[in-house]
Amino acid sequence: MLKFTIPEMEAFLTEVFPQVEGMFGIDRMDAELLVMRLHAHDRHLRPGGTVSGPAMFSLADVAAYVATMARIGREALTVTTHCSIDFMRKPEAGRDVLAEARVLKLGRSLSVTDVLLYSEGGREPVAHASLTYAIPPRR
Amino acid sequence: MLKFTIPEMEAFLTEVFPQVEGMFGIDRMDAELLVMRLHAHDRHLRPGGTVSGPAMFSLADVAAYVATMARIGREALTVTTHCSIDFMRKPEAGRDVLAEARVLKLGRSLSVTDVLLYSEGGREPVAHASLTYAIPPRR
Amino acid sequence: MLKFTIPEMEAFLTEVFPQVEGMFGIDRMDAELLVMRLHAHDRHLRPGGTVSGPAMFSLADVAAYVATMARIGREALTVTTHCSIDFMRKPEAGRDVLAEARVLKLGRSLSVTDVLLYSEGGREPVAHASLTYAIPPRR
Amino acid sequence: MLKFTIPEMEAFLTEVFPQVEGMFGIDRMDAELLVMRLHAHDRHLRPGGTVSGPAMFSLADVAAYVATMARIGREALTVTTHCSIDFMRKPEAGRDVLAEARVLKLGRSLSVTDVLLYSEGGREPVAHASLTYAIPPRR
Repeated sequence: MLKFTIPEMEAFLTEVFPQVEGMFGIDRMDAELLVMRLHAHDRHLRPGGTVSGPAMFSLADVAAYVATMARIGREALTVTTHCSIDFMRKPEAGRDVLAEARVLKLGRSLSVTDVLLYSEGGREPVAHASLTYAIPPRR
Repeated sequence: MLKFTIPEMEAFLTEVFPQVEGMFGIDRMDAELLVMRLHAHDRHLRPGGTVSGPAMFSLADVAAYVATMARIGREALTVTTHCSIDFMRKPEAGRDVLAEARVLKLGRSLSVTDVLLYSEGGREPVAHASLTYAIPPRR
Repeated sequence: MLKFTIPEMEAFLTEVFPQVEGMFGIDRMDAELLVMRLHAHDRHLRPGGTVSGPAMFSLADVAAYVATMARIGREALTVTTHCSIDFMRKPEAGRDVLAEARVLKLGRSLSVTDVLLYSEGGREPVAHASLTYAIPPRR
Repeated sequence: MLKFTIPEMEAFLTEVFPQVEGMFGIDRMDAELLVMRLHAHDRHLRPGGTVSGPAMFSLADVAAYVATMARIGREALTVTTHCSIDFMRKPEAGRDVLAEARVLKLGRSLSVTDVLLYSEGGREPVAHASLTYAIPPRR
């Protein structure tokens, strides 16, 4: 049972991360899977729509954040404590990158999320990440 | 198209890693998925069949090795260059641990394999690993 | 023996990554240690100079890139294949973040670089990363 | 201020991990650095004293455990939640492997430890690991 709808989550992201407004969208958000989108023509990217390593990291990080927050609710705080990311293929120029995020563990004090990144329309992942978020005790 | 059958791979493992003979088995090996088993009552484990962190690392490592070798064949050499592993839950005592390994990338010089570990019969993963193997140039 | 001076490397970075011009500086670059600086008041950061996780990732990534390129020279190509990063403390607002990068391995086909990040003037690291760069065969 | 002497810590390790008795020793343990030793001729290793990847993982894991426990004391519990390890060079056959462990962060609920592994007498590290231990609330 998720604690946000997609429009609620998109409004929440704009509120907490105003500096990346318009960079990301949510295609799907349910108990099984979250799909987030990095817009290839966003101003944060390189000219030509090439998606850099840091942009892929940002997408994986925000996807793990959204997948975790959707489960614990906005009164909670979380902070990334670890990311391991493998960059496996070059994303296709000019294509959005999609992140498929699955929460593997949601404990009292940490979550672990697996994220696969694909160029839209591609069948093989361009990157694979695992992220840990710490969930501080409720105030 | 894999370059080994399961009995061929089991014989190959005994040949190259005689010191762990009997520790691991192969339940399934095809183009999509490899399933390896760590026998909980093996002599390598703690008394009582508790599967330690190092034993889970060993299982993930051998599963990634087998999944890669099945694709490149025994004339090749590979060596682990990286492993990231999240330990998420305590394995159930006395149960075998199963590794589900999927090769995410098989390049000319490296492979990346995703491995999920489960206690047999359990639905939630006990650990999650990503391993990189370097594939040296053919001699 | 490094293949760039600091001014040469700064010019090279501006050439290959024009989109981040002004974001990073090089404080020290020799055979033992590279120190790079992320300018806290750069336009890439959040209002208020808070250094985000993705900005710290970017700093670690560029530091590992510079440390590797300084050794292999500009005719070579490299690409990040892996990053593991632990975020340990909150950077201090308004302070530059410094990256200390040490090349642990420089092989024919990959480099491994250790990076510690500090808020300027702070004694305890805010993040710790290990990055692998693949070095493709010379053309 | 550490909460164990070296003999106390060695006795504690034998008590909690009897199955690896004799595998590891402690060369140095103080506030700055822990040095642990993996005995190359131990029965846990391959014939010939070759130190395998899983044995290096075990050494890094126990070194991070000892470095953390030395700071928090034996009444506490800890459990490995993450390890990232880069295998960079082949250890020299027949030589002990030494682990240099430094605690980068000791928080209320987790520790992060950096570990470099060397073949005894060698100058370049054979492996580099970062481990996270979760520290559950005191009972």
